[in-house]
Amino acid sequence: MALRNVRIEVSYDGSRFYGWQRQDGFETVQQSIEEALAELLDTVVVIHGSGRTDTGVHGLRQVAHFHIDADRIDDDRLRHALNAYLPRGISVRRAETCADDFHARFAARGKRYGYLVQTTRHRPAIGPEFVHWERSPLDGDAMREAAQRMEGERDFAAFGNVGSPRKSTVRRVHHVRLVLRRERFAIVVQGNGFLYNMVRTMAGTLIAVGKGRMSPDDVTRALDLKDRKLAGPTAPPGGLYLVRVLYPEPVFVGREQGPGAPPGPLQY
Amino acid sequence: MALRNVRIEVSYDGSRFYGWQRQDGFETVQQSIEEALAELLDTVVVIHGSGRTDTGVHGLRQVAHFHIDADRIDDDRLRHALNAYLPRGISVRRAETCADDFHARFAARGKRYGYLVQTTRHRPAIGPEFVHWERSPLDGDAMREAAQRMEGERDFAAFGNVGSPRKSTVRRVHHVRLVLRRERFAIVVQGNGFLYNMVRTMAGTLIAVGKGRMSPDDVTRALDLKDRKLAGPTAPPGGLYLVRVLYPEPVFVGREQGPGAPPGPLQY
Repeated sequence: MALRNVRIEVSYDGSRFYGWQRQDGFETVQQSIEEALAELLDTVVVIHGSGRTDTGVHGLRQVAHFHIDADRIDDDRLRHALNAYLPRGISVRRAETCADDFHARFAARGKRYGYLVQTTRHRPAIGPEFVHWERSPLDGDAMREAAQRMEGERDFAAFGNVGSPRKSTVRRVHHVRLVLRRERFAIVVQGNGFLYNMVRTMAGTLIAVGKGRMSPDDVTRALDLKDRKLAGPTAPPGGLYLVRVLYPEPVFVGREQGPGAPPGPLQY
Repeated sequence: MALRNVRIEVSYDGSRFYGWQRQDGFETVQQSIEEALAELLDTVVVIHGSGRTDTGVHGLRQVAHFHIDADRIDDDRLRHALNAYLPRGISVRRAETCADDFHARFAARGKRYGYLVQTTRHRPAIGPEFVHWERSPLDGDAMREAAQRMEGERDFAAFGNVGSPRKSTVRRVHHVRLVLRRERFAIVVQGNGFLYNMVRTMAGTLIAVGKGRMSPDDVTRALDLKDRKLAGPTAPPGGLYLVRVLYPEPVFVGREQGPGAPPGPLQY
């Protein structure tokens, strides 16, 4: 029986799930999508994501692929029907048949994350699970300077760890940008790969610099000495968004009504 | 005993409360703030808002005032302590002592509302209670044209109703703007006052125009004939935000870290 490979682009509210990866006894994003596919197609389907996200971390455009019977339901109806079966908090943005050998994880060349911080005296009333709140104002100039120190191909051992001690902790960070949005800002990090907790530790370190508890030179020192204790704290998961997975070829070229802002409260 | 008049600026998540106004047996925003004040000051305090909002409608910068003993707790500690007593979903942005005769409702000269719409094929995964979802793309040019027809001093009888049949249905709408935000847009409406459900009916009518179900000329006709049946449907409350209350004098001139974006998911 001929199979076809389908890739999907998925948004999810990380506060509603125990992370991406299937775990017995916990509701995860992967499991929810697999169960929706099983209900829809009346068969077991295993999906492969571009990587995991932890509990509380949001997905804006996570990518996954799976194989189904070639002659079943077309892509657009699949997307539509899948959304009907999925629980609140997960939406399939797009679905398209792709090359048989496309693999969401192995084909990925990098990822872009955003870390959202609100700096107000009052706590967030609307959507506190979607932003990290810092009560004190932060020094944006110092943070920008520290962000630059994190760019390039470096050993990021001070900012996370790999599962196995034999694997490399060298990664290439394409850019670390601060996007100011009135009383909130986003730290946007793009790289060819990230160690476990690396983006959240980069964010926590930049916030520590913004508060004056660390200097840009401290960031350089932590990187040089490869010492986790010299970097800042790991920032909480609710501020973190997997924004985009980067592939060498363009994916999801079909119709879309815009370049992809996520839903959420009014911003202006 | 000398009293002092305090005004507060409040944000709230309308999906968590049965509207602004106190109602026996239902958790409302007004009641929650009054209960927090009662706990904090150990006395009964009645607050006066600039106006009501319905269940599901969000407040970004609602204004209210109340009188407390002149020598109790200063403004900044009051704000801070009040936030500690308030439930999730309400934040006091600012608190300041104001003129004895300031009245949040009677002094108000107008209001600004925002109505947020997401136009994607997929439903919102993150924060669906903060946006109105329209599956089909909307015609922005037609909507802009229709929005202009709603500006100025007009009889808005077709777009809502007053409580009493003897009161006027004439209001001055300063502007109706469409703010495009990638795959979402906001309808921003400012005026000197609004009939009950008027902003939601303006939004529903503009959306009907965007879908091609109504034309800009239909809007003019509904206004001219003052017939509610000729206007569009009343759009659901979750997309609506009370953005700002307008007063003749500047209020809340104190420190604030930005011009007032609400919290919410990452936008870019």
